[in-house]
Amino acid sequence: MEAVLWLCCRKLLAHQPRALTQHTRCLSSCAGSALKSSPARSVGTSPLLVSRLFQPSTLREVQELGMEGRAGEIPCKSQRLMLQAGLIHPSNPGCYYYLPATVRAMEKLVRLIDQEMQGIGGQKLDMPSLCAAELWRRSERWDLMGKELFRLRDRHGAEYCLGPTHEEAVTELLASQGTLSYRQLPLLLYQVTRKFRDEPKPRFGLLRGREFYMKDMYSFDTSEEAAHLTYQAVCQAYARLFARLGLRCVQVQADTGNIGGKLSHEFQLPAEIGEDRLLICGNCTFSANVETVEPGKTDCPQCHKGTLAESKGIEVGHTFYLGTKYSHIFNAFYHNDQNKPVLAEMGCFGLGVTRILAAAIEVFSTEDAVRWPGLLAPYQVCVLPPKKGSKTEELAGLAEELCHSLGTSVPRLKGEVVLDDRTQLTIGKRFKDAGRLGYPYVIVVGKSAAEEQPRFEVCCQQSGETLFLSREGLMDLLSEVETV
Amino acid sequence: MEAVLWLCCRKLLAHQPRALTQHTRCLSSCAGSALKSSPARSVGTSPLLVSRLFQPSTLREVQELGMEGRAGEIPCKSQRLMLQAGLIHPSNPGCYYYLPATVRAMEKLVRLIDQEMQGIGGQKLDMPSLCAAELWRRSERWDLMGKELFRLRDRHGAEYCLGPTHEEAVTELLASQGTLSYRQLPLLLYQVTRKFRDEPKPRFGLLRGREFYMKDMYSFDTSEEAAHLTYQAVCQAYARLFARLGLRCVQVQADTGNIGGKLSHEFQLPAEIGEDRLLICGNCTFSANVETVEPGKTDCPQCHKGTLAESKGIEVGHTFYLGTKYSHIFNAFYHNDQNKPVLAEMGCFGLGVTRILAAAIEVFSTEDAVRWPGLLAPYQVCVLPPKKGSKTEELAGLAEELCHSLGTSVPRLKGEVVLDDRTQLTIGKRFKDAGRLGYPYVIVVGKSAAEEQPRFEVCCQQSGETLFLSREGLMDLLSEVETV
Repeated sequence: MEAVLWLCCRKLLAHQPRALTQHTRCLSSCAGSALKSSPARSVGTSPLLVSRLFQPSTLREVQELGMEGRAGEIPCKSQRLMLQAGLIHPSNPGCYYYLPATVRAMEKLVRLIDQEMQGIGGQKLDMPSLCAAELWRRSERWDLMGKELFRLRDRHGAEYCLGPTHEEAVTELLASQGTLSYRQLPLLLYQVTRKFRDEPKPRFGLLRGREFYMKDMYSFDTSEEAAHLTYQAVCQAYARLFARLGLRCVQVQADTGNIGGKLSHEFQLPAEIGEDRLLICGNCTFSANVETVEPGKTDCPQCHKGTLAESKGIEVGHTFYLGTKYSHIFNAFYHNDQNKPVLAEMGCFGLGVTRILAAAIEVFSTEDAVRWPGLLAPYQVCVLPPKKGSKTEELAGLAEELCHSLGTSVPRLKGEVVLDDRTQLTIGKRFKDAGRLGYPYVIVVGKSAAEEQPRFEVCCQQSGETLFLSREGLMDLLSEVETV
Repeated sequence: MEAVLWLCCRKLLAHQPRALTQHTRCLSSCAGSALKSSPARSVGTSPLLVSRLFQPSTLREVQELGMEGRAGEIPCKSQRLMLQAGLIHPSNPGCYYYLPATVRAMEKLVRLIDQEMQGIGGQKLDMPSLCAAELWRRSERWDLMGKELFRLRDRHGAEYCLGPTHEEAVTELLASQGTLSYRQLPLLLYQVTRKFRDEPKPRFGLLRGREFYMKDMYSFDTSEEAAHLTYQAVCQAYARLFARLGLRCVQVQADTGNIGGKLSHEFQLPAEIGEDRLLICGNCTFSANVETVEPGKTDCPQCHKGTLAESKGIEVGHTFYLGTKYSHIFNAFYHNDQNKPVLAEMGCFGLGVTRILAAAIEVFSTEDAVRWPGLLAPYQVCVLPPKKGSKTEELAGLAEELCHSLGTSVPRLKGEVVLDDRTQLTIGKRFKDAGRLGYPYVIVVGKSAAEEQPRFEVCCQQSGETLFLSREGLMDLLSEVETV
């Protein structure tokens, strides 16, 4: 038996034609043309070539997207820009292909979320998408959710829904553990998975879809007091997350809806396209979803002095204190210090992962230029070599070398640098494209790089500044770039 | 409007009770009891406490799992061990909760896969799970797949299946791009997502489930020859991946099944529990799935000298050269150097992500001790402080400090070190537990650490060696540990 193992390697090596080596180099030319090391090693340290990215190198025209008429007919800016920039592609209603640049941004967002959730003790798991009807009948949400649940039967006729949220599943999991001790609480379990909801009106791209990624965390505590402290700790972690993204969220009191429970807040990102209406006091810290306030009320119920101003918001997070609603149904007990079983006090905490991406683009972008939170930009740096046939053509090598050296000297920029190799176009044209696609740093290797004391032109999209920097200055600037 | 922004932060800071700070510390005690820095900062550098992990600190008894009778009644070793170690928990038939340690291992595996796929130019996207019936009818697989497809209707009556694979979806995506140039080929798009298949007999834990994670890559080439070179490049990347995992896979010729196409290989991991039957020549490199060989044939069809020996295998990867089967159906053209539209030559390449985890445990573990490929172990190091009340009790602080210092001095071990704080138990008992859970390195802070020249007892699970090392020796050893 041993003798035949590793055959796959022997075979591949024995029969490897010269053409394969060349082709492999060609395959990996998406990761830099000049590199000759083995592909598995070269990744990340070499520049990615704009011409090879599965993303248009400029915003597409609305006509190209198969949309009739003027751009104005897609009223949602983030949806239009994400379609134009090749970030998403429509599939079924409310379902999108997330194209490579979006996957990169989403992976960064998930890493940030992981840091914040694990920072307060969260442990990450992954629950099935198929949820047995029986579980949802026990919580009475099988009927309550109505048409919003996608439902199906398996080959044996058993009924399932596709989980839009997982209170039932996680509580059943906890109940099955049997011997949970008070010493193990608070317990915070979370997942970042695809969720399903058969929205009546899916719209606005990733803002309201039928398939979307959500971070859902569930907490288990010994008492109502402890659960409230956990609730506040999660809200703080959310506030830190949004602060790191530069998103100015408002935490508003909210309705508990069909999740149930006693206390709830939404994290709202103010934006005109938002589907939620908020009331915010001009005098104190009060802010609420309009659903939770007596209709017609304009004076603040907290300070009784200020008046409530209305604003629109995109809900990017939602927190619930659930009490024992689900632990009671599924018998999720822990053992207290007298070894007596007690129902766990629960909370649940959602973040719309794909929605945060779209909402950030919505609030940061101009009408025709994509802007990202710095930490989430799919690529941090775009380097522009001179036009082919121009006087400074010989700087092309310098541009390529610069890309390579950025990836190695600044470890955080590994895989974050792209080279716009469309040198048949002028620098000006490519500079405009890079601006519209939203690379945080665009570096022009042009005339001033050919001077005796070479200077690189750096356009910082976030601040709008243009700097002319020496190589050292450039390295200093870029070594400060935060990545995740 | 500006004035009301950031309310969430102001609110949280204004009303933050002292209890919350204490509770937050308690919450993050999962990440080390001694640390007082803010939770978001402390994560990773501080030890995780075994008593707080949502994984049993020892293998569960089979009775505890609610399984009747003897352990022998779960014939599949990986399934039994994964249940006992709290790596998975059963949900519906063929559906499992992936518990936190499994999610950690899976994330590591996905990072490895990303490295290898991106190393050959792969770009990662994410396609919808809901696939329109119409797409699958065009490829005639809507009927062909029969009961293996999970099917459902939305609120408007539109029919969908839950994608078990995405040839239709990705080819439709390519076709929609319109202006693909030969310069952009080869194009390799892949995703790592949850897939669905209504297996008639889901069994063996993660080896044959109805929900599972799969890496599926799709290639687009200009010609059959180019597609063959891409095919070989992917096979090489697979061979590298399995080599890095220490898995001795065999690449065998395979049937194309209902995916279709002209050429296919499986990557098989030899194991008794495997459901595939392989024929392997003792004389040359020939190896094949028995399905592809004339029944009863025992002489090798390649060298005509050797005889074919049968072996069982777990299929962990599958590669297909598809030709124009799908590009023809969906009109996926590229433009050649004369700007004429030509059908793209396609390949597709799968890796069973959750299946690889289970298969690795299957082949590496003993009957009662979990063993992982080094790179995938959920945690690399477990540190055992002395028993409470023992003569060496005062070394507890040293053990905790060691954990902390490992996380900071060896950056690759950030978040990889756990402290078995169950000091009410003897070191011997906890040492046995750690061995059965499969931490690659178990460090005992016991008697010899109290000597004038302190020595730490290190058990290396992979090699079976036990070493007594000074602090410097320990750091040297552990700084060599490969992580991903």
